[in-house]
Amino acid sequence: MFEIRTDLAVETSENRKPEEELSGVRTSRRMAAEDIEITEVCIETQKAASQLGKPRGTYVTIEAAQMTDEDTGCHREVSKVLSGELKKFLPEDYYESKILIVGLGNRDVTPDALGPKVIDHLFITRHLIREYGKYLLEFDKCCSVSGIVPGVMAQTGMETVEIMKGIVDETKPDLIIVIDALAARSVKRLNRTIQITDTGIVPGSGVGNYRNAINAEHLGIPVIAIGIPTVVDAATIVADAFSSFISETEQDRDGTEDVEEKIRRIISPKLNTMYVTPKDIDEAVDRLSFTVSEGLNMTFVPSEPAAT
Amino acid sequence: MFEIRTDLAVETSENRKPEEELSGVRTSRRMAAEDIEITEVCIETQKAASQLGKPRGTYVTIEAAQMTDEDTGCHREVSKVLSGELKKFLPEDYYESKILIVGLGNRDVTPDALGPKVIDHLFITRHLIREYGKYLLEFDKCCSVSGIVPGVMAQTGMETVEIMKGIVDETKPDLIIVIDALAARSVKRLNRTIQITDTGIVPGSGVGNYRNAINAEHLGIPVIAIGIPTVVDAATIVADAFSSFISETEQDRDGTEDVEEKIRRIISPKLNTMYVTPKDIDEAVDRLSFTVSEGLNMTFVPSEPAAT
Amino acid sequence: MFEIRTDLAVETSENRKPEEELSGVRTSRRMAAEDIEITEVCIETQKAASQLGKPRGTYVTIEAAQMTDEDTGCHREVSKVLSGELKKFLPEDYYESKILIVGLGNRDVTPDALGPKVIDHLFITRHLIREYGKYLLEFDKCCSVSGIVPGVMAQTGMETVEIMKGIVDETKPDLIIVIDALAARSVKRLNRTIQITDTGIVPGSGVGNYRNAINAEHLGIPVIAIGIPTVVDAATIVADAFSSFISETEQDRDGTEDVEEKIRRIISPKLNTMYVTPKDIDEAVDRLSFTVSEGLNMTFVPSEPAAT
Amino acid sequence: MFEIRTDLAVETSENRKPEEELSGVRTSRRMAAEDIEITEVCIETQKAASQLGKPRGTYVTIEAAQMTDEDTGCHREVSKVLSGELKKFLPEDYYESKILIVGLGNRDVTPDALGPKVIDHLFITRHLIREYGKYLLEFDKCCSVSGIVPGVMAQTGMETVEIMKGIVDETKPDLIIVIDALAARSVKRLNRTIQITDTGIVPGSGVGNYRNAINAEHLGIPVIAIGIPTVVDAATIVADAFSSFISETEQDRDGTEDVEEKIRRIISPKLNTMYVTPKDIDEAVDRLSFTVSEGLNMTFVPSEPAAT
Repeated sequence: MFEIRTDLAVETSENRKPEEELSGVRTSRRMAAEDIEITEVCIETQKAASQLGKPRGTYVTIEAAQMTDEDTGCHREVSKVLSGELKKFLPEDYYESKILIVGLGNRDVTPDALGPKVIDHLFITRHLIREYGKYLLEFDKCCSVSGIVPGVMAQTGMETVEIMKGIVDETKPDLIIVIDALAARSVKRLNRTIQITDTGIVPGSGVGNYRNAINAEHLGIPVIAIGIPTVVDAATIVADAFSSFISETEQDRDGTEDVEEKIRRIISPKLNTMYVTPKDIDEAVDRLSFTVSEGLNMTFVPSEPAAT
Repeated sequence: MFEIRTDLAVETSENRKPEEELSGVRTSRRMAAEDIEITEVCIETQKAASQLGKPRGTYVTIEAAQMTDEDTGCHREVSKVLSGELKKFLPEDYYESKILIVGLGNRDVTPDALGPKVIDHLFITRHLIREYGKYLLEFDKCCSVSGIVPGVMAQTGMETVEIMKGIVDETKPDLIIVIDALAARSVKRLNRTIQITDTGIVPGSGVGNYRNAINAEHLGIPVIAIGIPTVVDAATIVADAFSSFISETEQDRDGTEDVEEKIRRIISPKLNTMYVTPKDIDEAVDRLSFTVSEGLNMTFVPSEPAAT
Repeated sequence: MFEIRTDLAVETSENRKPEEELSGVRTSRRMAAEDIEITEVCIETQKAASQLGKPRGTYVTIEAAQMTDEDTGCHREVSKVLSGELKKFLPEDYYESKILIVGLGNRDVTPDALGPKVIDHLFITRHLIREYGKYLLEFDKCCSVSGIVPGVMAQTGMETVEIMKGIVDETKPDLIIVIDALAARSVKRLNRTIQITDTGIVPGSGVGNYRNAINAEHLGIPVIAIGIPTVVDAATIVADAFSSFISETEQDRDGTEDVEEKIRRIISPKLNTMYVTPKDIDEAVDRLSFTVSEGLNMTFVPSEPAAT
Repeated sequence: MFEIRTDLAVETSENRKPEEELSGVRTSRRMAAEDIEITEVCIETQKAASQLGKPRGTYVTIEAAQMTDEDTGCHREVSKVLSGELKKFLPEDYYESKILIVGLGNRDVTPDALGPKVIDHLFITRHLIREYGKYLLEFDKCCSVSGIVPGVMAQTGMETVEIMKGIVDETKPDLIIVIDALAARSVKRLNRTIQITDTGIVPGSGVGNYRNAINAEHLGIPVIAIGIPTVVDAATIVADAFSSFISETEQDRDGTEDVEEKIRRIISPKLNTMYVTPKDIDEAVDRLSFTVSEGLNMTFVPSEPAAT
């Protein structure tokens, strides 16, 4: 009803009534473990992509209430599921590959620090393999892993995709994994949802501007994005509350449109540069960065014991 | 109309119609410089205090759009105004005093890091005076300044006031300054408002729980709080938007009350642990921490050139 | 021969010849696990304490080459040994106790950040027990744990012992654990040695100044210090190299004393404010802070699974 | 006499006796202000470069005791001198240029964080000029400034020069400035010396390996390096002390060579991965990063008031 921003494909379709279901979108759900639910959304046609405001491709969402737990055991479980789902996006012989992992976001803003913190905990191997290659027999099935934290445009003056394109051309990885903090539509998904997609990512996105997309088209090699929603756009939270309110008050459709117009005026333009995040976001991002990096380490450097 | 949380006294009265003005509250406004406005709110009676949900005392608010500027010159101007207003809260011979400055908040959460960052930039003198006292002639008008970053309860397991009471009993300062990030009601005040008050502060407050107040009553010496709003409560932003919406749609008072009830149900309880903050909060907090620490340094260690 | 600074009791006696062994000092060694060696030094008399420049008491040292490993499994092993040795310093019914854990040092100086980082990873329970006491049945054998990072004197203007005395008087713990980065004499012990002692600690020590000791005498309750050497004093490293050199060149005792005098002139007084540390100290301190916090968590909050 | 590592050209020649002066090296000294001394070393021939172990080019050193002061005023003076000397390395019309500024080093290791911290304080303009170009009239004489913190090889798995080559190819700057923390030979130069050179830099250098040099030859555009020594190699400090000792004891040249051999055995190979740094390095690096970034801001974005 209102224009709601969400980076999660799973949220674009969930309030849709059966008769409104889009052709060109295939959705399936299953449990990966007790309390860990997997949803796969495939956007198959360009038309469906336009309607949902998301590029064509596959979006796998892992949802688990336990991600907000302090208990480490649960997190290891989630790391394993993440690794399992990620492998489905990889070629079978990916062990031979050179992987570049990119931590997007701003390390100095707590909910945006997920990407940089994941890179901090990765087991980086590219330089070791180049220097000691043959002597590292115990790692003979491990990937060449490199990592970079490019920073955000306000810090660098450069588009992230420019920096990455340069590094890709120079170091020739076979595959890119980008890690980023996302915006959800609903606060209940914050810090308990992981989305994996083969469509890449548009940094600081919003609608329509794909010029700076970090994706296979721009970089020339496959780009898999792993994201966790840590914020909700402030305007979204207000508009979404209005939607509920208005549907509760059962105003008729005509009246509603009029109302929509008023709401648009009320939502301060200032809200567009604001986000909503939980008070304990520091602990959540710390924990989740370990969950993701452990999932990546067990995928790409499997003879290395799962990192703490 | 709805229960709106704000730490700013200036916001408790601003939408009040003239006929609703509270007795026991005195408000005055003046310009301190071009574009720097000072508002003083004195809550003089216990009754007014209860009605506003704020302790009796004086609240001085410095508002300046230029605080969000990157230009350093503007910030030095604000630091000077802050120093001037702060001195009005101090005894005339405060140069002889021992000052303890406390940086409240959580360093790991960007908008809550203001207090800890201010302490980082202070010119700390207590240990120097105790060791070299008489030799430090060039500082003979400077205060004994000590500083502490006590951390938040989730990190320490202790109430901040417990930690401070212990340190006060042991080190016997004459006066406490506490620095904290605040919650405003309106996004337009974020990062451009400084409140100085002699009422102290209630950490992580909300309504009614003054058991842990950091104030003169609990600590036995004057407590002056300096705060800057860096967040808006997420529930506040939604409720506030509703207020505007409903007053715009000119629903009659009776209907409105019914609506209020509905809104309360719609506002997710989850929102109570969420806050709204701008995307560039890292730069804002960095800059503002220098503005405040420079104001404190020029007040308490005046022979020291204004610190960068 | 030269005045060598070390915070490790085990290093005060190791180069001593049998005939020089001190009466009043009892030393024993054993293996706690493959590759984990435990040395216990008991300084039993005041005379021995003066000769060694260390307070009377018990010093247990855990040495393990694997502490410098990246492999997590090894670290869990060391955490268990640490927990076991620590328990020998605790009363049998310590589960009933209130523990205050103090992270000494400066978070902004990499090798000195061990204490603050350990506190970051602790499971803090005091506030939970006070608020939910009876409902936390699954934790009924856990201690009340509080934690504090007091900062260093240049940041606070206060002696650490002043801050701690205040907090102890106010919150009445039964026992204090202080965590600190230490100075070793030998680079080969850096980042692979843990010392536990019941003598407390003298921050920024050196010889002779016990005025600010953080110990039972000053705080009125038992103080157990856990430290890991992360630096060697720069003057120590030079003087120590000279010792080897001169004993190698077999100069006679008389000549040596003359030499000593010269060396003292050569060692720049500037070196006294300098320390030596390894280039990968950031990774070492990160890992070791997890090793220590895990050891503490499994001791004091045992129903909590070992933290990551 | 011993192989001493220093990144400062000024230290390679200073203990040389007149009769040992190298042909192909031109050295001149002057005062830039009271207490600010400038030394210029030009290495003009390949033979001199080999003898000194430094590439051919110009090395300007700014030395000022006041850099270790807390007084801000002094630092602004140094920033101005830095800007003046830097301009001598730039073409006259550099205002038209696109500048890429690179902060080398590891943010998590205090003395190595200089480069990253300088980038934090820069006024970055490239993205603003690209988006608002013509509207930014007040900046019409400012350069296009971009910045990057590439990280160290242990974090990225990539050589810094690979990352930079990629970014240069993609974003086409006209000139590169690299900022790095250096190793001095003498502790007395730490944190009070700035070296500017047109020879670029070899990260984590040492002798002989120029494969990864960040210089004009590898990057295809001019590279100016600005460095401040914040550490001394531990082996250097020991060897240097020995040199003084031995020259003091006036051993004859023959005996000395024998001694050298012994010393080489005594200096632990472990020392090669160790460095010496002052205890207050956190404050020094913080201050110096402002001094350098202010010097760069006043050079490249001159209509922007000098940043704090």
